[in-house]
Amino acid sequence: MDPREVIERARAEGRTALTAPEGRLLCEAYGIATPGEGLAGSAGEAAEIAEKIGLPVVLKIVSPDILHKTDAGGVLVGLRTAEEVREGYGTVLANARAYNPGAKIDGVQVQQLVGGGHEVIVGAVTDPTFGKVVAFGLGGVLVEVLKDVTFRLAPVSGDDALAMLDDIRAAEVLRGARGAEPVDRAALAGLIERVGRLVTDHPEIAEVDLNPVFADARGAVAADVRIIVGDRPEEVRRLPREEILRQMTRIFKPRSVAVIGASAENGKIGNSVMRNLIDGGYRGRILPINPKADEILGLPAYKSIADVPGDVDVAVFAIPAKFVAAALEEAGEKGVAGAIMIPSGFAETGNAEGQREIVEIARRHGVRVLGPNIYGYYYTPENLCATFCTPYDVRGSVALTSQSGGIGMAILGFSRTTRMGVSAIVGVGNKADVDEDDLLTFFEQDDNTKAVAMHLEDLKDGRGFVAAARRVVREKPVIVLKAGRTAMGARAAGSHTGALAGDDKVYDDILRQAGVVRAPGLNDMLEYARALPLLPAPRGENVVIITGAGGSGVLLSDACVDAGLTLMDIPPDLDTAFRAYIPPFGAAGNPIDITGGEPPSTYGNTVRLGLADERIHALVLGYWHTIVTPPMVFAELVARVVAEEKEKGNVKPVVASLAGDTEVEEACEYLFEHGVVAYPYTTEKPVAVLGAKYRWARAAGLLR
Amino acid sequence: MDPREVIERARAEGRTALTAPEGRLLCEAYGIATPGEGLAGSAGEAAEIAEKIGLPVVLKIVSPDILHKTDAGGVLVGLRTAEEVREGYGTVLANARAYNPGAKIDGVQVQQLVGGGHEVIVGAVTDPTFGKVVAFGLGGVLVEVLKDVTFRLAPVSGDDALAMLDDIRAAEVLRGARGAEPVDRAALAGLIERVGRLVTDHPEIAEVDLNPVFADARGAVAADVRIIVGDRPEEVRRLPREEILRQMTRIFKPRSVAVIGASAENGKIGNSVMRNLIDGGYRGRILPINPKADEILGLPAYKSIADVPGDVDVAVFAIPAKFVAAALEEAGEKGVAGAIMIPSGFAETGNAEGQREIVEIARRHGVRVLGPNIYGYYYTPENLCATFCTPYDVRGSVALTSQSGGIGMAILGFSRTTRMGVSAIVGVGNKADVDEDDLLTFFEQDDNTKAVAMHLEDLKDGRGFVAAARRVVREKPVIVLKAGRTAMGARAAGSHTGALAGDDKVYDDILRQAGVVRAPGLNDMLEYARALPLLPAPRGENVVIITGAGGSGVLLSDACVDAGLTLMDIPPDLDTAFRAYIPPFGAAGNPIDITGGEPPSTYGNTVRLGLADERIHALVLGYWHTIVTPPMVFAELVARVVAEEKEKGNVKPVVASLAGDTEVEEACEYLFEHGVVAYPYTTEKPVAVLGAKYRWARAAGLLR
Repeated sequence: MDPREVIERARAEGRTALTAPEGRLLCEAYGIATPGEGLAGSAGEAAEIAEKIGLPVVLKIVSPDILHKTDAGGVLVGLRTAEEVREGYGTVLANARAYNPGAKIDGVQVQQLVGGGHEVIVGAVTDPTFGKVVAFGLGGVLVEVLKDVTFRLAPVSGDDALAMLDDIRAAEVLRGARGAEPVDRAALAGLIERVGRLVTDHPEIAEVDLNPVFADARGAVAADVRIIVGDRPEEVRRLPREEILRQMTRIFKPRSVAVIGASAENGKIGNSVMRNLIDGGYRGRILPINPKADEILGLPAYKSIADVPGDVDVAVFAIPAKFVAAALEEAGEKGVAGAIMIPSGFAETGNAEGQREIVEIARRHGVRVLGPNIYGYYYTPENLCATFCTPYDVRGSVALTSQSGGIGMAILGFSRTTRMGVSAIVGVGNKADVDEDDLLTFFEQDDNTKAVAMHLEDLKDGRGFVAAARRVVREKPVIVLKAGRTAMGARAAGSHTGALAGDDKVYDDILRQAGVVRAPGLNDMLEYARALPLLPAPRGENVVIITGAGGSGVLLSDACVDAGLTLMDIPPDLDTAFRAYIPPFGAAGNPIDITGGEPPSTYGNTVRLGLADERIHALVLGYWHTIVTPPMVFAELVARVVAEEKEKGNVKPVVASLAGDTEVEEACEYLFEHGVVAYPYTTEKPVAVLGAKYRWARAAGLLR
Repeated sequence: MDPREVIERARAEGRTALTAPEGRLLCEAYGIATPGEGLAGSAGEAAEIAEKIGLPVVLKIVSPDILHKTDAGGVLVGLRTAEEVREGYGTVLANARAYNPGAKIDGVQVQQLVGGGHEVIVGAVTDPTFGKVVAFGLGGVLVEVLKDVTFRLAPVSGDDALAMLDDIRAAEVLRGARGAEPVDRAALAGLIERVGRLVTDHPEIAEVDLNPVFADARGAVAADVRIIVGDRPEEVRRLPREEILRQMTRIFKPRSVAVIGASAENGKIGNSVMRNLIDGGYRGRILPINPKADEILGLPAYKSIADVPGDVDVAVFAIPAKFVAAALEEAGEKGVAGAIMIPSGFAETGNAEGQREIVEIARRHGVRVLGPNIYGYYYTPENLCATFCTPYDVRGSVALTSQSGGIGMAILGFSRTTRMGVSAIVGVGNKADVDEDDLLTFFEQDDNTKAVAMHLEDLKDGRGFVAAARRVVREKPVIVLKAGRTAMGARAAGSHTGALAGDDKVYDDILRQAGVVRAPGLNDMLEYARALPLLPAPRGENVVIITGAGGSGVLLSDACVDAGLTLMDIPPDLDTAFRAYIPPFGAAGNPIDITGGEPPSTYGNTVRLGLADERIHALVLGYWHTIVTPPMVFAELVARVVAEEKEKGNVKPVVASLAGDTEVEEACEYLFEHGVVAYPYTTEKPVAVLGAKYRWARAAGLLR
């Protein structure tokens, strides 16, 4: 029978769980090995099947009315002779009848007893964000108590399936740790891949649980198959990339911006937006819309957007929610590309209906809606501050987005205090329409943007995000702060795999696979955003620590291990070369401890050597404040050496930790301005930033 | 045979590994269950023994001439009846004779067959820092691949042994997860306790490996015993607490400080120390010692410390290493309590001999040596800046120590920039003599010190530290930054347990047991040091988040889970009470989302309720910068409400995360000054600090 028919029959019968034989049929159709078996209608038939498929066997009652077979005494394990099978048939049948006298009994399943090797779990679930997702883990305690499981979007390629085997903490076990038999990796990966194809081809399959799968050096057999079916998930509506780009370009580089609800009155949102557009230096047309004014802040005002001569690219809404729908109709008729929906009072206050209404109006007119419930957006290359906050003008190359207004304000404050250069700051708010993948699609091709950092609480379309992120990551880092990490969704799960698919583990695995650099917290996101665009990409994994303080060296080494960085094993000739510059009681090796109290030349020589030797790929500097080499002397020296070596083509990421009195703060600012990511009073932060840069570089394929 | 004799015999024979029967003897002497066994000389005797110790059994030929028993057919496993044992005896004997007709045969060993239940490992090692340490873990993959193991100082109390069962990641398994049989916890803990006593009573035992131990509902049996013996470790020299305290009090509260190598010449260390003592405002006698000067910086100078009239409490050394020994002899003869040994050029540059020499001189005179190779020390209650750095005068209640000069400088810079109030900053450098337990002994009883933060790379006397820390922690938090976390010592190990005892895991478990709050990095240590003394101790685990930004609320919740905090389950009456103050679309529950755009009164009412309701034990505030409630309005309001509720006896820790434009920085400073730990642009840091406070409060027994 065709898999489609199997599924349809179950659905037609109102069943969500497929029977074991049905599950087996699906497995067979996809080349997923299951134990040999047959359905027996009599004791003699059972013995015959057992001898054919090979003893020992398991007997299981088959009845649509008996779900918990074991409770019913409907399972017998390890029958070793034809005689035992014959007797067992009677026992199972009698037990089942005693348990539920009315049960319809289809027969007794005779199944080859498999076991030995490694017990693993392969499954699939339908994730609300990402759709079909495949899971893999080692069976037993490891997956159930320690949750040692890994997820991937379905379908899974052969390479990805192989990578999954290495992505669990106990991966070593499958390679034959403790004298265990190594598994046939190709066979096990193949089985994972097949499960991915099965659920991709048949979206009606909600969950698959192959648990246990027995994997050994000879192959992988799914001993137990549990498949749950449901409704076909709705298709996600996605616009073609070109259309997104066309609209987003009009939104970020508008020739004209209308402010609906523009006001001359201080304290009004429509006044703040007008001021910020003007004070920010936006050079396109600014069009105040207000039925009661002729002029606002020196600019001619219009009663309605319809009255504006010529095209309008963007309409910023600064009016109460109840007036939005009518104004949006007008803006749509006018042909605006983007409606910047500042007003609150939609889904976030329970007004989901109002939100649906504006989305419907916007769709009808082909208008993209940013928000509602946002602070607006900034795009510095156009001097565009379409927001009710304050202008921000430090141009730079990172684009930041936030789902929450509070986080947006934190981005703005942090940017201002650190003078972080940004290309864009965008509030996405309720994400009624424009979401992160739309923005990624724009930033991907935006030459003003070299890195993207996004705060998000959820994704409307996980797959759309992954696809966009994968493209962007090839060229630019994408940093994500996913809030709600620890809120394990209380999910009604019909399978083991479902129970394991806590929101965050799925997010974490899939974002990592998409090449996204996940920030563990808000401050990390901000620091990564500030620092990553400044650092050149590393060309290899060899990191060297050069430190004036042995104490910092130890802490920097700890931090490198935490950040997944590789401390270079310094070859003898390089060791000799470093030793030539440091005191005899200093330590070459890695960290290179140049010792305290050294003059600037010792820092200069060793840093220069570190930049010049092509076997070294990144430097971590530990500075110790002394009278001999004061903080600003160190900063200027390092900046100069880095610049000189850059001239010679020696471009490498350099980060620094400065330990000293308060002058080190100024020195760090100076270094930052000169492309060296430096922090005072912390050994962790500079290394964490370097680690983030490396995570991106690996995802972008730069270190293969 | 007495355990002592067993060990001595092995050592006399030049053996380090005990034989299986020897190991068994030691186990028996300590009540550690091993499988029952006996040596049979006849088939009848074999059956008799088997029935006595319990069937099933294993039979093994015992012959000095047959090493590979299995190859000789000399092992039979799983004999279930007396009859099988009788027959088996003959089989084993016949096989052995066929294998080696000339073999001398001592008999057949009859051994109880154990297995089933849970396979666990119990062991002990001799740690270079902590001495005898007991280990526990689940056997197999969990301990060997995932290193899921826990350590405690030996001896282990019954309660600690029980706690060890819960301290592994897979603890659930022993409680019967996945339908497994729960173990007899008392029996297993008893076995751990006995191993602790065994190695404590017999320090010559270097390592113990009971692997596997089979633990089930009926008990715990060590199926395999491996014991390694060696030399008795040296006893650690410890001074009586009273003596330490007498000396430390003279050092921290000296009536007179001599500066050996005092100088009038700018740039000299002996000049900086003099200036800092004078400029710092020290009010005791300052005694410059310099053979070539009559007066230094306006103070009469002495040729030698011997010439000083009256007692001298402290001598600060500011002379080159080569002159130290002679000057220390003089200082010793003068009866100083402390030699503050700033000079470098000792063990850290390879001059271990020079360091040993000064320790010997100091011991002879009863002088305590701080250093060498340090920046000196500060003790603000006495205005004492005995250091070559710069004076620091912000009095406060945290004492900080560092093993590295660079980290000391970072402490100073951070303190100055955050205006952190400190009682002491102390460099311990090479720790030739004074170490962390000496300092803890002083800070324990120092009313000027409410918290202690220590950077350390190693401990000279781990047990001394633990004993001191345990005492201090009852009253004051002890924060430790242990550097070298990730440098797993490459340790020559003769056992499984030894191989598992990587430096950091042992440190981590034992520091935690001592009640120490371990800081993950330098900046964390500094922030904990700054914030912990400001926060009152919580009286219970119920944490409530009140936030103006939903986005911050989600991130703050994540941070609470990360920090091991418990988000209170708000009871219905309290929920109603909160709802009365927030807009209808806000969310009570926890986080309490008061929504953005709210006036100060909403923050005020909810924070007041949070402080007043006695079921709530700590508050985490999330502020969102708006025009309606600007940052300083929020800060002053919260400070006022906290102060008012404090008047009423409602004293609780309050931390805050401020999201907004740069004005939030000033607001955070204001809040900090008013006892509310507040940070801008981060949701993680305030919660991490609260988490650290809670870790201490739990260790101090305040939350039981």
